[in-house]
Amino acid sequence: MTIYEKSLQLHEEWNGKLETASKCKISTREDLALAYTPGVAEACKVIAQDKEAAYKYTIKANTVAVVSDGSAVLGLGNIGAYAALPVMEGKAVLFKEFGNVNAFPICLATQDTEEIIQTIVNIAPAFGGINLEDISAPRCFEIESRLKELLDIPVFHDDQHGTAIVVLAGIINGLKVTGKKMEDCQVVVNGAGSAGVAITKLLLTYGFKSITMCDISGILSKRSDGLNWMQESMMEITNLTGRTGTLSDALKGADIFVGVSAPGIVTAEMVTTMNKDAIIFAMANPIPEIMPDVAKAAGARVIGTGRSDFPNQVNNVIAFPGIFKGALEGRATQITEDMKLAAALAIANLIPDNEVSDIHILPEPFDPRVANVVSQAVKDHIK
Amino acid sequence: MTIYEKSLQLHEEWNGKLETASKCKISTREDLALAYTPGVAEACKVIAQDKEAAYKYTIKANTVAVVSDGSAVLGLGNIGAYAALPVMEGKAVLFKEFGNVNAFPICLATQDTEEIIQTIVNIAPAFGGINLEDISAPRCFEIESRLKELLDIPVFHDDQHGTAIVVLAGIINGLKVTGKKMEDCQVVVNGAGSAGVAITKLLLTYGFKSITMCDISGILSKRSDGLNWMQESMMEITNLTGRTGTLSDALKGADIFVGVSAPGIVTAEMVTTMNKDAIIFAMANPIPEIMPDVAKAAGARVIGTGRSDFPNQVNNVIAFPGIFKGALEGRATQITEDMKLAAALAIANLIPDNEVSDIHILPEPFDPRVANVVSQAVKDHIK
Repeated sequence: MTIYEKSLQLHEEWNGKLETASKCKISTREDLALAYTPGVAEACKVIAQDKEAAYKYTIKANTVAVVSDGSAVLGLGNIGAYAALPVMEGKAVLFKEFGNVNAFPICLATQDTEEIIQTIVNIAPAFGGINLEDISAPRCFEIESRLKELLDIPVFHDDQHGTAIVVLAGIINGLKVTGKKMEDCQVVVNGAGSAGVAITKLLLTYGFKSITMCDISGILSKRSDGLNWMQESMMEITNLTGRTGTLSDALKGADIFVGVSAPGIVTAEMVTTMNKDAIIFAMANPIPEIMPDVAKAAGARVIGTGRSDFPNQVNNVIAFPGIFKGALEGRATQITEDMKLAAALAIANLIPDNEVSDIHILPEPFDPRVANVVSQAVKDHIK
Repeated sequence: MTIYEKSLQLHEEWNGKLETASKCKISTREDLALAYTPGVAEACKVIAQDKEAAYKYTIKANTVAVVSDGSAVLGLGNIGAYAALPVMEGKAVLFKEFGNVNAFPICLATQDTEEIIQTIVNIAPAFGGINLEDISAPRCFEIESRLKELLDIPVFHDDQHGTAIVVLAGIINGLKVTGKKMEDCQVVVNGAGSAGVAITKLLLTYGFKSITMCDISGILSKRSDGLNWMQESMMEITNLTGRTGTLSDALKGADIFVGVSAPGIVTAEMVTTMNKDAIIFAMANPIPEIMPDVAKAAGARVIGTGRSDFPNQVNNVIAFPGIFKGALEGRATQITEDMKLAAALAIANLIPDNEVSDIHILPEPFDPRVANVVSQAVKDHIK
């Protein structure tokens, strides 16, 4: 039986991977009077006087909405709200299992940007945070930035920032392994969607100086056709020398390649043209941009993928549970750039310098320390 | 410590009465690959082909949204979305504890009818049913009826129909106790909001012939001023003789009084003008329209209230968990009038005829049989 067949069978057995559970037992009339009417009226009255009290008396304290419109689900594309449900439900499970954060899947029967924004604003009162998921670019950028303005709870698009944080953590340790200096690194990011844009921004915020973005048409520059508004704005901060050409051209003399793109598009030959001790993140799933052994043989030093069967797996589950755990515990109103950088450093620093190696730049997803150190780092950086 | 103080203290300890829980354990890489990527893609693909498969593979199978805009919460009035949260969360707990139905509170940051409808439609994919709660009349009627048209999952306004079902169940047994014939009964319903309207409609559907609705201004008739559209439409099916006057006038010669109104507005003197063996449901909370002992002394035979410290408590928890349990298990697309009547009969029939008495017309909320018989009755009446 393949993993897919087995998973489908299990999904049928589970008949829902998530459930709700009561934290208060209701077995007597008194229990009922305390958890529900008439006793509950008191908590209502206090919150009616002071909205903030909702954090003290309700699930708003520790519950996240996992929201998707199903427009860009995994590698499956625009499969819609119903088909997105197993993923959002799974994500909610991971929030609970890895970060002890309650999460509930909200799959939206609309792909209209304004309606998505309005719907999320309307359901926000019960939630302490909004985790956006699998919404296609460039709509995801507008939805996230508008929601950040409209809501007083953290809004976080995990496909963007979760990925960016884990990639940055891996790169920080990749620099330790290779002895490369951030200021001197030439970085190529292939894929100019939500993840590629967020990774590029976070690397620049961290201090990288020279990043070139590519997509299927090659190097992106101010002169490229068909850029969306976000990609256009990225041209103000990347490819400052105005290079043009193919991905192959971009990789000549590059130190770091980050792929959030398509299987097999990086060849061994391209890797040989990169600088010595190249760092490669080939995160196309399930087939990476280049297989790790091929990249290694061609001279790359550190290689990460999205897969659990190779070393250095870039898995968002290292980041998002701890990020929301920290944001909720610290009552953050936003996830700031500072908090993202702190999370990346906390992840990187979980591996002692003397244990960092070519094949060990990121902690394991199941390392029980991860969510706590990430959450603490996030809390320490709440303004 | 009062029940209110104790409840508030417990709410702080609980810090959320509800939580989410995973039904699948995630402790190995394989677990992760089966519950989440890459395995989960298979369930997504199957649902993308056939939306109905969401009932097989996701929480849609057994999860209800408890939705309120906070406009008419308990006796507290329009306290808004945040202050409504403890109630909606409590309701979600009751769904789980009494019916083993997963439920999640959705408190809306809007009280605009169109926005409420659109928001609920937009979040519907993850849910198998919508339980509307504490939305003020007459908006609740439009919201419910529009949602029933727009959605293919059950939509149920519990303040209306849950209350109506339990009242009907109580009245069915009240007739047994008093030997009154439904066809001959004069019924007075005081309170013309969501519950009063729904009770009146369900009693008429069941077979009662003569119902007079009253509100604070007295008997409602076609000539009454200031009726809302729903109350106007109720004048086509109630008070067919066009009576006018006060509540006191209405009660003369009445057999059944149903109050969903205000404390203490029915006097002993009024009860003495009712027919022999009157049945009284005085459900204003926490202080009923008339205290049971006063009504009894004035000649009433069967008296029910909303309180747990008197006999014959009308508590919606007798109805809604089983109703949704049955609707979800039977994959009903609506809660029909048939299903409501069947639920009321099932509740009434839980008490054997030889055990029905003045002080025992309704089962206890904690009777473990209730949710199952209600759910079975509902399932048996799905078309």
